[in-house]
Amino acid sequence: MDVNDAVLTRLTIREYKPDPVPDEVVHKLLEAGRLSPSSQNLQPWHFIVVRDNETIRRLGELATQGPFIGGAPLAIAIATDDTPRAQLDAGRALQQMELVAWEEGMGTCFVGIREAAQNQTIKDLLGIPEHLVLLTVLPFGYRLHANMGRVGRRNRKSLEQVAHVERFGQPYTG
Amino acid sequence: MDVNDAVLTRLTIREYKPDPVPDEVVHKLLEAGRLSPSSQNLQPWHFIVVRDNETIRRLGELATQGPFIGGAPLAIAIATDDTPRAQLDAGRALQQMELVAWEEGMGTCFVGIREAAQNQTIKDLLGIPEHLVLLTVLPFGYRLHANMGRVGRRNRKSLEQVAHVERFGQPYTG
Repeated sequence: MDVNDAVLTRLTIREYKPDPVPDEVVHKLLEAGRLSPSSQNLQPWHFIVVRDNETIRRLGELATQGPFIGGAPLAIAIATDDTPRAQLDAGRALQQMELVAWEEGMGTCFVGIREAAQNQTIKDLLGIPEHLVLLTVLPFGYRLHANMGRVGRRNRKSLEQVAHVERFGQPYTG
Repeated sequence: MDVNDAVLTRLTIREYKPDPVPDEVVHKLLEAGRLSPSSQNLQPWHFIVVRDNETIRRLGELATQGPFIGGAPLAIAIATDDTPRAQLDAGRALQQMELVAWEEGMGTCFVGIREAAQNQTIKDLLGIPEHLVLLTVLPFGYRLHANMGRVGRRNRKSLEQVAHVERFGQPYTG
């Protein structure tokens, strides 16, 4: 799948087939994260691959923003060092992972774990050290609906609202 | 180009051919940003497209972290609302833009504008309102060196160092 096609068709996916994700695909997802660029090349990320049924089930219970994690065959938690650009760097890494997943017929949905007690409980469950920041648990799985991936099903501001030519306030109309 | 190929071959690019970037390619880059997912779908971003020679030259002078902006035919500044996830969301958007650029034979390099006075001067130059955060000015251009894009030229931690199985500290060795 061309990069541009992936970008145009990608949708956020919260329902997954139960089919397991093969090792070689997990490897591709991890490489997409690992090889991502980061500020000053600090690579402030850790990826925890979860495929154990019971752990997945617990993650779905604990992450109130993403109970659908419990229905995924794979979850990858991202924890970062506390660097100034960690959120931005992790955003770049997870977006590479999401696009690779999309190309594989899979999907994901960003689940933030912002509530402090919840975040700590999940850190404990996954053995994540105190000094790291648990940013997200990303569920991954094959897309349940075959008709996913058509262009234009997303609710977005128009290009004129967010793109400007030469100076802010001069709307892009190209 | 397949998504996975783009992820595996992408490099950070600081030298560009002087060739202008066609309107339709600028459009693709902006769409890659606009269609990116964001936390609560807030879409906290603005993209300012700069192709004016004099403005590009000034950006290269002002952004001390990225003087090479001055040698690019195109720069896109990203300014965000001040939301909790703006850096992460912008990271996702700019990574989609970078991968689309790579597929087009182009490249970019994240340039942060963290020094306060510098940031303000560039905001003024581009007419960016006070309430927005200027996160980066991304130079874009066609890659100068034909041999760019080979696998393995990047300095990265190993997968074992950043990937874990089931629990943090159980290194991924797949």
